[in-house]
Amino acid sequence: MAEADWGSAREQMLLDPTVVNLNTGSGGPLPRRAFERVTSLRGHLAHKPMDFLLRRVPPLLWQARERLAGFLGGNPHRLAFTTNVTGAVNLVASSLRLAAPGEILLSDHEYTPMRWCWERMADQYGLELKTFRLPPRPDAPGEIVDAATAAMTSRTRLLFFSHVISSTGLVLPAKELCEEARSRGIVTVVDGAHAPAFTDLNLADIPCDFYAGSGHKWLLAPTGVGFLHIGAGREDSLRPMQVSWAYQPPPGSGPADERDQFGSTPRLRRLECEGTRDICPWLAVPESIDFQAALGHDRIRARMRALADYSRQRLTGWQGMEPVTPEQTDLSGGMVAFRLPAGTDAAALRRGLWERFRIETSVVERPDQPLLRVSTHFYNTEAEIDVLTAALKELMGNP
Amino acid sequence: MAEADWGSAREQMLLDPTVVNLNTGSGGPLPRRAFERVTSLRGHLAHKPMDFLLRRVPPLLWQARERLAGFLGGNPHRLAFTTNVTGAVNLVASSLRLAAPGEILLSDHEYTPMRWCWERMADQYGLELKTFRLPPRPDAPGEIVDAATAAMTSRTRLLFFSHVISSTGLVLPAKELCEEARSRGIVTVVDGAHAPAFTDLNLADIPCDFYAGSGHKWLLAPTGVGFLHIGAGREDSLRPMQVSWAYQPPPGSGPADERDQFGSTPRLRRLECEGTRDICPWLAVPESIDFQAALGHDRIRARMRALADYSRQRLTGWQGMEPVTPEQTDLSGGMVAFRLPAGTDAAALRRGLWERFRIETSVVERPDQPLLRVSTHFYNTEAEIDVLTAALKELMGNP
Repeated sequence: MAEADWGSAREQMLLDPTVVNLNTGSGGPLPRRAFERVTSLRGHLAHKPMDFLLRRVPPLLWQARERLAGFLGGNPHRLAFTTNVTGAVNLVASSLRLAAPGEILLSDHEYTPMRWCWERMADQYGLELKTFRLPPRPDAPGEIVDAATAAMTSRTRLLFFSHVISSTGLVLPAKELCEEARSRGIVTVVDGAHAPAFTDLNLADIPCDFYAGSGHKWLLAPTGVGFLHIGAGREDSLRPMQVSWAYQPPPGSGPADERDQFGSTPRLRRLECEGTRDICPWLAVPESIDFQAALGHDRIRARMRALADYSRQRLTGWQGMEPVTPEQTDLSGGMVAFRLPAGTDAAALRRGLWERFRIETSVVERPDQPLLRVSTHFYNTEAEIDVLTAALKELMGNP
Repeated sequence: MAEADWGSAREQMLLDPTVVNLNTGSGGPLPRRAFERVTSLRGHLAHKPMDFLLRRVPPLLWQARERLAGFLGGNPHRLAFTTNVTGAVNLVASSLRLAAPGEILLSDHEYTPMRWCWERMADQYGLELKTFRLPPRPDAPGEIVDAATAAMTSRTRLLFFSHVISSTGLVLPAKELCEEARSRGIVTVVDGAHAPAFTDLNLADIPCDFYAGSGHKWLLAPTGVGFLHIGAGREDSLRPMQVSWAYQPPPGSGPADERDQFGSTPRLRRLECEGTRDICPWLAVPESIDFQAALGHDRIRARMRALADYSRQRLTGWQGMEPVTPEQTDLSGGMVAFRLPAGTDAAALRRGLWERFRIETSVVERPDQPLLRVSTHFYNTEAEIDVLTAALKELMGNP
């Protein structure tokens, strides 16, 4: 696809032309057709709430489930919608009963709230939390697998890791990590917040017990789309966080895994139902999948990578900035993070980028040094990265 | 307000003119301005997600909290937004640690999923569930208080009841019930799903420990609005269902009850935050409050009652149909439920009303006899009740 074609694809996105959005990693804007779809569904809900909920939702919900499962390489009968990854991981953590004493093993780069989530679970059940150190800038996936397996012991009950590390964009070898864990009898929970539409995700290839993902980042689905995919043999281990009307199936319900009249199965519905809420974002997921499919998922990922590489070229080495994200295609995608000079005030820099240049990007304090994370989706441009480069020069002093 | 004025007020609602909506009790349609407001907020979220979440949400969230607290007669520093009542009650039930052995006391007319919620809690902590029988058609609130207090013993740890009974529209004397419970050291949790904008709710008058309510019914707020109001002295007893980014306050945070930079307080935010989700419905609440305030809250309630009375006149006595909802103004409002002839097929009747007459109303099986529940908000008309009457004659046979 030539430059001009990406320009016309960009025009199909809802974007404020005065804003440079290099932060899809935190949350993506919407394709116009996805916003129109979800708004139209919400219009029906607003006009005729009961007609919508009772009659219109069921077929749309099943269709959305099948489409998302197809896109992810998963099984619709094992795919529960959630609001986000936080909800999916909390559902697993609040359900599992692991043998104590023992350990929960995490990488040292997990998203802080998810670490807290496992800490709470560990405290409650008398388990210990242990982290393994990710190699700082690995050259091959095997280095990550080695680091993880070296930390697995007979006390390890569960392995939790991000498929794509949120702070750096590093892609972890999910398949190999889960294989190693499974061969040791360790339960695996994968945080795939960034993975859908960022990696060429195929859940059928990853032998994990639970895979959580979100739709509002790289998939460009409405805020409020998440999922939990339940691995074979784990069907009976989840306990809904909330008791709602699907806690007990209605009289005359079919088997737990049979498609029901609500666009679900009794098993999935029990986990998904949390009273009356707006699930229109779930129903609009096919729109975001179709939108990206029309552009070509592989071509989008190639474009994301090309822009990430361009960010590397422009920013690396300047004022000591060094990418912490490897270049290898099996270890990275459309996000590059740069270590900023020690002493950089992350909050001030983030504010300056927004207030003076209308650039939205992620600048965060990290234990070692502050990190700038540049997210590049297909709709971004080289010119936007040039604007970021110039803004950083302005805000951080000349090179 | 004359008939003509209610007609013009009705025109400000999103209503399908081909549908007779007598089911606000299940979920209300939206005033046009509330839908436009929530859609506009969602447009901002779709265009510039991070700008919206980081900069626009905080002042709007606090404003919505203050407005809702003001409307309810509550305290904004004790008002946590939730998605709905189910979420609010589950939050309380999953948090409280009651002394076992002991009993949880419920009325015999609670919403089934909430009964299951307390059953799960009781099972988990070695408590017993006990119900007291509501008088079938009380003449005075005191009869309900007597029935409840007769069931309170030294073993009673918690009282849970609906401020407005969902199946019948019976209004319970929440203040007196909570006073009686409090004087015996019993924790009170009130399910106010129907109460906001249905009763003249003033939380300051009700000495309960926890009050849960929803916005998508009589308040005519978007789907996804619920709240939990935390009574004095109960601030420290809640534990968030999900561990999210507000589980630990960020460095430099103020005291737990001080307004923070996120439109919340550290205490409330810890309970409210559940990852990235669409909270635009919360932010649009002031629109629904303003809409009803412009029509006059008292006048709306008087109109609701007049229409409920009209339903009574039209339907009572016909084919043995008898209202189970008292007429007294302190025991009822804009919902009347009728006992249908024994043997009525509730599902078939509901389907017939919709498919043949485009009437949306609630017809449910109950342990004794099926119930027809007619909800009348200000936007309904006498003519719609006439259509319902004629439809029932047609579907159930001639009188």
